[in-house]
Amino acid sequence: MSHKKAQNLEIDNLDIQILSILMKNATTPYTEIAKDLIVSGGTIHVRMKKLEEMGVIKGANLEVDPQKLGYDICAFLGIYLEKGSQYNEAVKQLKSIKEIVELHYTTGSWSIFAKIVCHDTNHLREVLNEQIQSVKGIQRTETFISLEESIKRQITLD
Amino acid sequence: MSHKKAQNLEIDNLDIQILSILMKNATTPYTEIAKDLIVSGGTIHVRMKKLEEMGVIKGANLEVDPQKLGYDICAFLGIYLEKGSQYNEAVKQLKSIKEIVELHYTTGSWSIFAKIVCHDTNHLREVLNEQIQSVKGIQRTETFISLEESIKRQITLD
Amino acid sequence: MSHKKAQNLEIDNLDIQILSILMKNATTPYTEIAKDLIVSGGTIHVRMKKLEEMGVIKGANLEVDPQKLGYDICAFLGIYLEKGSQYNEAVKQLKSIKEIVELHYTTGSWSIFAKIVCHDTNHLREVLNEQIQSVKGIQRTETFISLEESIKRQITLD
Amino acid sequence: MSHKKAQNLEIDNLDIQILSILMKNATTPYTEIAKDLIVSGGTIHVRMKKLEEMGVIKGANLEVDPQKLGYDICAFLGIYLEKGSQYNEAVKQLKSIKEIVELHYTTGSWSIFAKIVCHDTNHLREVLNEQIQSVKGIQRTETFISLEESIKRQITLD
Amino acid sequence: MSHKKAQNLEIDNLDIQILSILMKNATTPYTEIAKDLIVSGGTIHVRMKKLEEMGVIKGANLEVDPQKLGYDICAFLGIYLEKGSQYNEAVKQLKSIKEIVELHYTTGSWSIFAKIVCHDTNHLREVLNEQIQSVKGIQRTETFISLEESIKRQITLD
Amino acid sequence: MSHKKAQNLEIDNLDIQILSILMKNATTPYTEIAKDLIVSGGTIHVRMKKLEEMGVIKGANLEVDPQKLGYDICAFLGIYLEKGSQYNEAVKQLKSIKEIVELHYTTGSWSIFAKIVCHDTNHLREVLNEQIQSVKGIQRTETFISLEESIKRQITLD
Amino acid sequence: MSHKKAQNLEIDNLDIQILSILMKNATTPYTEIAKDLIVSGGTIHVRMKKLEEMGVIKGANLEVDPQKLGYDICAFLGIYLEKGSQYNEAVKQLKSIKEIVELHYTTGSWSIFAKIVCHDTNHLREVLNEQIQSVKGIQRTETFISLEESIKRQITLD
Amino acid sequence: MSHKKAQNLEIDNLDIQILSILMKNATTPYTEIAKDLIVSGGTIHVRMKKLEEMGVIKGANLEVDPQKLGYDICAFLGIYLEKGSQYNEAVKQLKSIKEIVELHYTTGSWSIFAKIVCHDTNHLREVLNEQIQSVKGIQRTETFISLEESIKRQITLD
Repeated sequence: MSHKKAQNLEIDNLDIQILSILMKNATTPYTEIAKDLIVSGGTIHVRMKKLEEMGVIKGANLEVDPQKLGYDICAFLGIYLEKGSQYNEAVKQLKSIKEIVELHYTTGSWSIFAKIVCHDTNHLREVLNEQIQSVKGIQRTETFISLEESIKRQITLD
Repeated sequence: MSHKKAQNLEIDNLDIQILSILMKNATTPYTEIAKDLIVSGGTIHVRMKKLEEMGVIKGANLEVDPQKLGYDICAFLGIYLEKGSQYNEAVKQLKSIKEIVELHYTTGSWSIFAKIVCHDTNHLREVLNEQIQSVKGIQRTETFISLEESIKRQITLD
Repeated sequence: MSHKKAQNLEIDNLDIQILSILMKNATTPYTEIAKDLIVSGGTIHVRMKKLEEMGVIKGANLEVDPQKLGYDICAFLGIYLEKGSQYNEAVKQLKSIKEIVELHYTTGSWSIFAKIVCHDTNHLREVLNEQIQSVKGIQRTETFISLEESIKRQITLD
Repeated sequence: MSHKKAQNLEIDNLDIQILSILMKNATTPYTEIAKDLIVSGGTIHVRMKKLEEMGVIKGANLEVDPQKLGYDICAFLGIYLEKGSQYNEAVKQLKSIKEIVELHYTTGSWSIFAKIVCHDTNHLREVLNEQIQSVKGIQRTETFISLEESIKRQITLD
Repeated sequence: MSHKKAQNLEIDNLDIQILSILMKNATTPYTEIAKDLIVSGGTIHVRMKKLEEMGVIKGANLEVDPQKLGYDICAFLGIYLEKGSQYNEAVKQLKSIKEIVELHYTTGSWSIFAKIVCHDTNHLREVLNEQIQSVKGIQRTETFISLEESIKRQITLD
Repeated sequence: MSHKKAQNLEIDNLDIQILSILMKNATTPYTEIAKDLIVSGGTIHVRMKKLEEMGVIKGANLEVDPQKLGYDICAFLGIYLEKGSQYNEAVKQLKSIKEIVELHYTTGSWSIFAKIVCHDTNHLREVLNEQIQSVKGIQRTETFISLEESIKRQITLD
Repeated sequence: MSHKKAQNLEIDNLDIQILSILMKNATTPYTEIAKDLIVSGGTIHVRMKKLEEMGVIKGANLEVDPQKLGYDICAFLGIYLEKGSQYNEAVKQLKSIKEIVELHYTTGSWSIFAKIVCHDTNHLREVLNEQIQSVKGIQRTETFISLEESIKRQITLD
Repeated sequence: MSHKKAQNLEIDNLDIQILSILMKNATTPYTEIAKDLIVSGGTIHVRMKKLEEMGVIKGANLEVDPQKLGYDICAFLGIYLEKGSQYNEAVKQLKSIKEIVELHYTTGSWSIFAKIVCHDTNHLREVLNEQIQSVKGIQRTETFISLEESIKRQITLD
């Protein structure tokens, strides 16, 4: 627990306010944030640097519409391993499959839970059949497909 | 695939190259991109504006580490509705629960699949028991918890 | 059992041979069949008429490639009813949904098992969400999608 | 949907109208179709040839009543493979089992989903126990039986 | 185990030996049993009467081959109730369905587990759809069919 | 089907009436049956002999109360095989486990479905853990226990 | 998090050592603990009082053998609620059923998970059928029975 | 129930009354129990010694609050073995994993059911991934987490 204390110690209300604004729109200029929070622009810079050094901020992502780029299928995969102990090895191989955009070690009936993005059902079949299912240690997969993404957002800090 | 090209007539190789760079690091300066791709900085600006107008680029997200902000639990929820036809109404109410960061209408046994982020197991219990399960139309939920996020990345354009 | 006896009585080896040829290719000319089986063309006509009257032959289907006609998604649905006794009523309504091309009352965990054909995942979502799940008596559905049809053929008579 | 038209440039409304008629009754004479659609019989021939060359029309099937031919059992099989990667090999062997009339690679919990037609429960047992379950790579199967086929029809073009 | 003896004080080794013989073949003449066990025929009569009075012996069943009597389908049903508390009422109604030959209240996921015997799949459909699923309190059923009965015997006393 | 014809040919209404009486009470004296059905006692003897020769009647079972004999647990087992093809071999071994009183090859998710009778939960554990689960080919079992047997009867002939 | 800091502050190594000894055997005399840890008996008293006031120690349980007291069945129940929101109300009623010795609100497919202790299978049936399943809000239960308890111990502090 | 009495001949009403008091509070002084039950303190001592010798009383447990000691996660594990016959061997290894506080051999779909206590989700992941899933014979686990413990108590004797 002690490491939490050390780190959280330095996150104050102002940090949270800055993060809240940027998590809604990552391109908000610092000057605008400074004005909103009635602090100097320099303060924003100092705080952002601190938050980056602390690892709170890990970077910025360009948010794109996958469908507009020809990725029509978003699917979720529950993965059963032959042996639970093959997890670390399997993840190493799964990292090289670029269609996998998210991967978790989970409680419940699956060992691994992944999110993949594909062009169409043919592409999904290839990724499943030729790539994922040939990873050593993977016994079988349960796939379900997103037919609509109704919510996609960041945490609201409070 | 030809129909995709027809639809996104204006997305050419240069657009893809620009997107590829920014999807790896959204804060890469346009001047650096321009230099890398041997085009003028103005071209990058023109292309970015076009991609935004086309809806290909939807914005930029500040990537934060939820655990560093005290959100220790990332959970997935399969939601069963009393009747599948209550989907639209249920989603409306679910949108007001801020711990839900992603929500899909899916094939498979669940009607709705959601991702939620909570401080700890007590918080998760409150969100499940007091908020999600009191949404009209929701019969029951199956929850599983991420014990480790091993992959989290954007699509690699190709 | 007696009706079986009555009917099967009249199906002889020649009938089976004729059916075998036509089940491989429904457009084989009767003259060719007659030549192959060393009988007169009139015999083929007589037998075909008998098989139609007996209800053995129910018609001829034009076999089309759904994907070439823009139907990219073939999905299977396991349907749970609120009460098993609502089956007859539910089927009546399901018949009016033209995307459903096959429907069975089955053993196992589902009451109804259906096959549907859709243009794309958006179309599938509409059919599921707006049409099928609003049928009275249907509680929920489990959907799985065909990523490849590897076998599609008629029974081989023997 | 406009992109589909682009892809299948040569399929126009007349083609769709011809297909619609023949998909309802594959034996409708061309002269009747021509009269209905107020075109010449030659036009129907030209269009049909084109649709066959394009692969839209794949043939014609004689529709028979399996029960009248002594096939009383229609069953569905969810097949689990020992390893998902054995799919291609397993399908090759499954093709030689003539009771299998349809086979899909699917999302969901099964790797392979098949439809089989058998004479009676003894026949089903033999096919499952002696043929399907001895295919290399197949771990186990889940079978469910159709107790009634309430819908069986072609897509309605629109 | 001593408490059992206490409870069934009157069941001794001779009783067990008599039961063992009759459980293998219920028509063994008492004289033969007496000879085998080196006791008088009267002793067998006395013991049998005692075992009947104690309720150990409940009667004798004629063992028939259901298939030879035209009952080709033996199926098992897992029954889900709308509310577990409706068990007693549901059982009362289920008793009037003569195709049900065995019914248990069980642990596991089903409330009720039943065995039914039917002529054919049509008969099974009628029993399920028109009789069982219209019993008040029954939500849905999971059916599986016996494709072969490999063991059917009495307990071997020891 | 022809074998059915041969056999069923000889089962007439009188046979069914005799069987109905004996299936309700296997110890009904032939003289009583003869009187009830207004035929001679000899006729009953002739018919019974015929039914035995035809295999319709397989014997008579002494019906005992397992609980009165110290068998307090009646359990059902769904058995998963490592490979479906190991069924025949597994059944051979299972036949030597005397606690198994019924065993079926079934559709659904299990390969084998069995009914076992045990003294108590300790006995059940021994049978499962030391006997059944060490049978070659058996991967795992799902057990559920009968808490009450509400129906146990023979088919009612009609 | 702040409450953790406040509390954990006062738990030092000596507290942990005292707890470790007493968690192995709750009846170890304080004098013996004091001697083992080379502190005064008074220190043990002071620490114990503090740990009780802090709520770390909640009491002492007499560990009995349920089977020796005639409780032969230990069962686990997964409980499905009609609506997840009925949890609080259902728990209130479940508390009055004395056979329930442990009850959790859980992730996974069940809303409530409980452990119950009963005399025998008849008792279990009564508790399930007459008590638990008549609790308002409970839809159905999945029961599984412990056939052997191989581990039962306290946390080992470290 | 009479047979139980026979077995535990020496457990009388006074024993049950003493146990009832101590099972509610294990630290109740014998003098207080004696006063309550209107017997001598010596009688309590005699009875307690007898109950210990009979194995009815197995010891006393210090009841602690795991969360106050930094154990925030209480999880349940359903464990599937590769082969049911590996149970004894697996249990031996599982005993050395100190986070496992309870372990049962169960009916239902899991071979082994366990309860584990961990500091946080990271700790749970380590225990699952590095310890439990590397035990020989364990194929995979299904985990669910307690979000709230609403009941935790001893059997109420009656």
